[in-house]
Amino acid sequence: MQRQKLLVNGERLKQELERFADFGRTDNNGVTRLALSHEDRLARDHFRACCEELGLSVKIDDMGCMYATLEGTENVPPIVIGSHIDSVKKGGRFDGILGVVAGLEIVRTLIENNVKPRIPITIVNITNEEGARFEPSMMASGVLSGKFAKEVMIKKTDTEGITFEEALKNIGYDGDSDNRLTDATAFLELHIEQGPVLEQEKLSVGVVECVLGMVCYDIEVNGLSNHAGTTPMPMRKDALFVATDLLAEAREKLSVLDDKLVYTMGRMNVSPNIHTVIPNKVVFSLEARHQDEKVIEEVEDIIQSLTRSEAITEGCSVKATKLWGRDTVWFDQSVVEQVEEATKSLGYSYKRMVSGAGHDAQFLQSYIPSAMVFVPSQNGQSHCEEEYTTWEECERGVNVLLETVMGMLAKV
Amino acid sequence: MQRQKLLVNGERLKQELERFADFGRTDNNGVTRLALSHEDRLARDHFRACCEELGLSVKIDDMGCMYATLEGTENVPPIVIGSHIDSVKKGGRFDGILGVVAGLEIVRTLIENNVKPRIPITIVNITNEEGARFEPSMMASGVLSGKFAKEVMIKKTDTEGITFEEALKNIGYDGDSDNRLTDATAFLELHIEQGPVLEQEKLSVGVVECVLGMVCYDIEVNGLSNHAGTTPMPMRKDALFVATDLLAEAREKLSVLDDKLVYTMGRMNVSPNIHTVIPNKVVFSLEARHQDEKVIEEVEDIIQSLTRSEAITEGCSVKATKLWGRDTVWFDQSVVEQVEEATKSLGYSYKRMVSGAGHDAQFLQSYIPSAMVFVPSQNGQSHCEEEYTTWEECERGVNVLLETVMGMLAKV
Ligand SMILES: [Zn+2]
Ligand SMILES: [Zn+2]
Repeated sequence: MQRQKLLVNGERLKQELERFADFGRTDNNGVTRLALSHEDRLARDHFRACCEELGLSVKIDDMGCMYATLEGTENVPPIVIGSHIDSVKKGGRFDGILGVVAGLEIVRTLIENNVKPRIPITIVNITNEEGARFEPSMMASGVLSGKFAKEVMIKKTDTEGITFEEALKNIGYDGDSDNRLTDATAFLELHIEQGPVLEQEKLSVGVVECVLGMVCYDIEVNGLSNHAGTTPMPMRKDALFVATDLLAEAREKLSVLDDKLVYTMGRMNVSPNIHTVIPNKVVFSLEARHQDEKVIEEVEDIIQSLTRSEAITEGCSVKATKLWGRDTVWFDQSVVEQVEEATKSLGYSYKRMVSGAGHDAQFLQSYIPSAMVFVPSQNGQSHCEEEYTTWEECERGVNVLLETVMGMLAKV
Repeated sequence: MQRQKLLVNGERLKQELERFADFGRTDNNGVTRLALSHEDRLARDHFRACCEELGLSVKIDDMGCMYATLEGTENVPPIVIGSHIDSVKKGGRFDGILGVVAGLEIVRTLIENNVKPRIPITIVNITNEEGARFEPSMMASGVLSGKFAKEVMIKKTDTEGITFEEALKNIGYDGDSDNRLTDATAFLELHIEQGPVLEQEKLSVGVVECVLGMVCYDIEVNGLSNHAGTTPMPMRKDALFVATDLLAEAREKLSVLDDKLVYTMGRMNVSPNIHTVIPNKVVFSLEARHQDEKVIEEVEDIIQSLTRSEAITEGCSVKATKLWGRDTVWFDQSVVEQVEEATKSLGYSYKRMVSGAGHDAQFLQSYIPSAMVFVPSQNGQSHCEEEYTTWEECERGVNVLLETVMGMLAKV
């Protein structure tokens, strides 16, 4: 038997997204809404007001996460929909907030259609996903899932020396640990892709299967500084020459490893970094991501091989330090399938894909069956003021979530 | 007829060098004596006291340069011996001060041997050679030779906003423009090599023929920043990948140009320089030095060719900006020959060589017949606390200067 198909209100969704963008909007139509800042507080207050107006009960946990629940007719764990309200400095209007507003729009659609859900629906705002003010990123979901120790996290400081704990108290969002998310039927996170794949392939929806495993290393090259004008070329121990040779060697070896591998040398610091002095030290980062841990192991072998490279000239030395690594997180197969079915039933173009970026859902997946939905990012850009997803694509993404929820409510 | 050969007192020379090193000596036996600092003032006061004790008249010009003159029996322009008292931050005990103490030791040797010179001998301390506190380097010699405008220079500020003019008044060394060095028989500057050539070739003395011409460019690569985890490799516009390819291409082309060419990419700045973000901008410096302007022109052609390189991937752009250039300065052939003759007559091992580093003598050469003498730098190091030249090598260098002076005095 075919269920009645509900669709969300695209115009209302757009207006709500723009309303949230007012909290920290920048001159170039981006958003600066650092975790626990004044702008974050205003956005949280607005979110709470919206929820209370809908008759939802709003609870706050001890990490400042907000839970707004529409009661269900059965006493079962809720379906949780959400993401994060915080942004990076000069970030965009979609990253994070889209997943929270999606929850609001879904509840609004249910209520205006007089749907009394069997299962409670909880909209969640997870504190400090970005880690832009207080490192690390995904802080609160890390605490909820037991990956991070709360005692350590709340002592983290921003650049002005304010602790997370103080900042949380300052904005009035220090709640009770009893309110933490402990059990749920499912967690659904709608998010912008933050990459160019959907746009390039002209697809509307990404059904996310996993968050990629990754490793990050620092490669440090030491040489000897000397005067740029007085040291003949054969007598130099130029750390930058060695570093750029190693970077090229790494690129060459990594490029033939696997088509899906991504690798980035995003940071490079040269010392003393003066045009008239031969560099004596260069440190550059090398991070790589892939879903298959065997490939990641091969990446680590390549990184280790750099320390024995023939490109290391006499008098220079190289060491590789692993900064961190994480394994690929596979989302719940059943929830992913339900999301895929919902997408198909709506007739949207889509693909199953991976997430190269980290998200709260990867931590929550450890104790809640989770899945994510991606919508296209224009030019693959995010974490910048140019970040953009068309309103229609946002709407489709929310419809996928609503249809997934409707499917779960229909099951017995 | 063979002249009587005077030699300086090596022990006294060493003690005087160590005495000066006390003005700003660092924990690691280096020296911090920035131009017009308290330490510079103390060293200047000591220099003046030494000169007055020897019966020399001491004059100060409007740039703070100090001139201490031993009168000659004839009314002719003086033989000027000197260098600079100022140092870089955490510099060495030899750079600059050796050339000033050489003048003191030569005058002491003449006086104790009752030599009444035909030509006046002037010991000079040239203000702010290093440019470490007030840019540019070689400031006062630049003003004396008309390369720099005094009005512009005296308004230069240090990092605390103090102008050169104020600092000069503060230490009480603002003198009279009438005292400027306007005419001289010769200018002789003894200096450490600041490079490894003499040490490597086991030579005691470098007879310097020229200061190398040079060019300095910034190469700027622009690409597009994207998320390191979500952007497939073929869709990237990675500015660092292009920049390191161009750096390698430049090295390859420059390496076959001329054996004597030196080239350095000493500064490289990556933006945004975050390990999880693909770099959108890289700027690196490329400076090259060679005595032959034809070779420098070829270097500039190579730099221009980088902007059209096949290594520039689609979506990236490259521009090369010339920051500055200077032509090779050839020292006075006759004075250079006299220095070479003096070195030979003392039986010291030596070679004619070039200076890759800049020195006050290169500006003074424009209106005074000038020459320089180098002594070996251990490990080629300078502008650092490890800077070292053996006392014997210092002594030999001063003997070369003294013998050159004696030759000039002997001529009719
Ligand atoms: Zn996000
Ligand atoms: Zn010097």
